[in-house]
Amino acid sequence: MSGTVRLFRGSTPVEGLQPDDRGFRYGEGVFETMRAHRGAVPWWPAHWQRLARGAARLGLPLPPPGMALAEASALLAGGNAVLRLQLTRGGGGRGYASPGTAEPTWVLSLHSLPPVPAGEGLRLRWCGLRLAAQPALAGIKHCNRLEQVLARAELDTGEPADEGLLLGPEDELVSAIAANVFVLRGGEWLTPPVERCGVAGVCRGWLLEQGLARVQRLSRGDVEAADAVVLTNAVRGILPVVRLGARRWEPHPRMRMLRQALAAAHPAFVDPDLETA
Amino acid sequence: MSGTVRLFRGSTPVEGLQPDDRGFRYGEGVFETMRAHRGAVPWWPAHWQRLARGAARLGLPLPPPGMALAEASALLAGGNAVLRLQLTRGGGGRGYASPGTAEPTWVLSLHSLPPVPAGEGLRLRWCGLRLAAQPALAGIKHCNRLEQVLARAELDTGEPADEGLLLGPEDELVSAIAANVFVLRGGEWLTPPVERCGVAGVCRGWLLEQGLARVQRLSRGDVEAADAVVLTNAVRGILPVVRLGARRWEPHPRMRMLRQALAAAHPAFVDPDLETA
Repeated sequence: MSGTVRLFRGSTPVEGLQPDDRGFRYGEGVFETMRAHRGAVPWWPAHWQRLARGAARLGLPLPPPGMALAEASALLAGGNAVLRLQLTRGGGGRGYASPGTAEPTWVLSLHSLPPVPAGEGLRLRWCGLRLAAQPALAGIKHCNRLEQVLARAELDTGEPADEGLLLGPEDELVSAIAANVFVLRGGEWLTPPVERCGVAGVCRGWLLEQGLARVQRLSRGDVEAADAVVLTNAVRGILPVVRLGARRWEPHPRMRMLRQALAAAHPAFVDPDLETA
Repeated sequence: MSGTVRLFRGSTPVEGLQPDDRGFRYGEGVFETMRAHRGAVPWWPAHWQRLARGAARLGLPLPPPGMALAEASALLAGGNAVLRLQLTRGGGGRGYASPGTAEPTWVLSLHSLPPVPAGEGLRLRWCGLRLAAQPALAGIKHCNRLEQVLARAELDTGEPADEGLLLGPEDELVSAIAANVFVLRGGEWLTPPVERCGVAGVCRGWLLEQGLARVQRLSRGDVEAADAVVLTNAVRGILPVVRLGARRWEPHPRMRMLRQALAAAHPAFVDPDLETA
C-alpha cells in the first residue's frame, strides 16, 4: 500500500513536487498522520482542527476542506491504513520571506499499518537529546522534525528499545519521539503540557476531553515512580509500557480500562493486539 | 536567472523531487547559499566544509564533491549569481527513523543577486520571536527554518525594516534573521557564539579567521550601546546598519575598513554598492 500518493497545488491535482517548495526548503508546513478504518478516519475532525491550528500559526492557507476529505476517502477505497496529509506553503522565494501569492501544496499518502509490538508492551529509553523550548511552534505538528529524527537515531545503537522518552530544557518530561506519554500516579493519568515543547497529539486530546486524564508538569523521576505508563498516538492508540531502562512495569488494570474506553469509542482500535495486551 | 535548477539522487541526475523526500517531510537536510562571481564561488571550500559538518551532524551522506563543483560551475556558466545547494536524506520511510539505504537528494539552483539596499545602510528591528536553544542543531545550516520564516513575517507589519535581530532564550543576542551580526565596542568587532542557537555564517567565519573580530556573548543592551553594527552573510558580504528602532548610527570609519578588507580578499564583494556606502 506504501507509495500510494496524490499531490495538489491549491485545488488542482499536480504530478510532482517542485524543488522550490518551501516545505522542502525550510520545512514550512504541517502534517497529520491518521488511522483509517474501513475507509474512514474516525478522528478526521480532530486532525483537521489541529492542521488548521498549525496552518493558522504559520499563516498557511488550508486546502479546500471538502475536497481534502473526498480525496482522502477515494484514496482509502474502504481500506485500513495509515493516511498522511502534509500541507506546505507551496513554491517560491529563495529567502525566508514567504511569497504571499503561493498556492499551498498538499499531499495525501497511504501507508501500511505499523506492526503490532511484540510482547506485553513497549521498551523505552531516555533519549540524550533534549527538546528545545519554542512556544511559537509548540503544540502544532509542523514539519521541522530534525529533533525527532536525531532522537530516533539514538535508538539504533545501545540497548534495544521501541521508543524513546524526551525531556525539555528544564529536565521536564515532554513526550516520546512519536507519541505522547501518560503516567498513572495516585489513581490519575497525567500527561505533560505542550505549550513550550511537544505536539498536542490527537489521541492525547481525546483522553483529556473524555476526562480520563489531566495535564500536569512531570519530571523524569515522576515517570520512574509511576504506577503505570502508556504512550499514545493517533495511529496506534494507547500502548502499554513495560520497561524504561532498568524500571519494569507489570500490566496494570487501569491501563486495560483506558484502552477499552478507546476501543469502545473508536472501532479502529478494537484490534487483536489491543485485546490480548 | 531564477528557476535554473538541477536535481540529483546520489550521482544520478533526476527530473523531479519525490513526495517521500525526507527534506520535504521533516526538513531533514542542510543547505548553502553562495555568492558566485564570474562563474566561480570564492568561498566554495568554506561552504562545502560547513555542508559536510552539517551532514555529519545529521548523519547524511554527501554528494560526490567533484561532481557537485563541476555541476555548479556548469550551471553558473561564467555568471554572477546566488547559487543554492540543498542536500537532504532522500526518500523513504513514513516515520522519523531514517532509512539507511536512501541515496541523498541534492539540488543546485541559481538565483538573481539581491537588490542593493537603498540608503546608507540597513534599518533593523528587534523580533518578538525568541530563538530556541538546541545545541544539537546550532551552528549548522539545516533545513528546519520555521523560526526564521516566522521572524521574517514579523517584518511585514509595523515600522519598515530591512532585517530583524533575534535574541535567544536568555535574552542573549544571536543573529539577524538571515545574517550574522557584529558590533563594534571598545575598538573591537564582536559577534555572539553559535553553540546554542544560530548559524556559523561563512562570512562570519572569514572575519574570525582573519582576526578581524572575536566571539563574545552579547546582550540587547550591548547592541544598542555599540559604536557601530554590521550584518554579514555569504551572499551580501558586510552590510552597515544605520538604525535599530530609535537608535541611529552614522557611518563609522571602522565599518569601511572592514568592508574594504573583505573586498580586497574577495572580488565578488568589490561592488558599486560597497564602494559608495
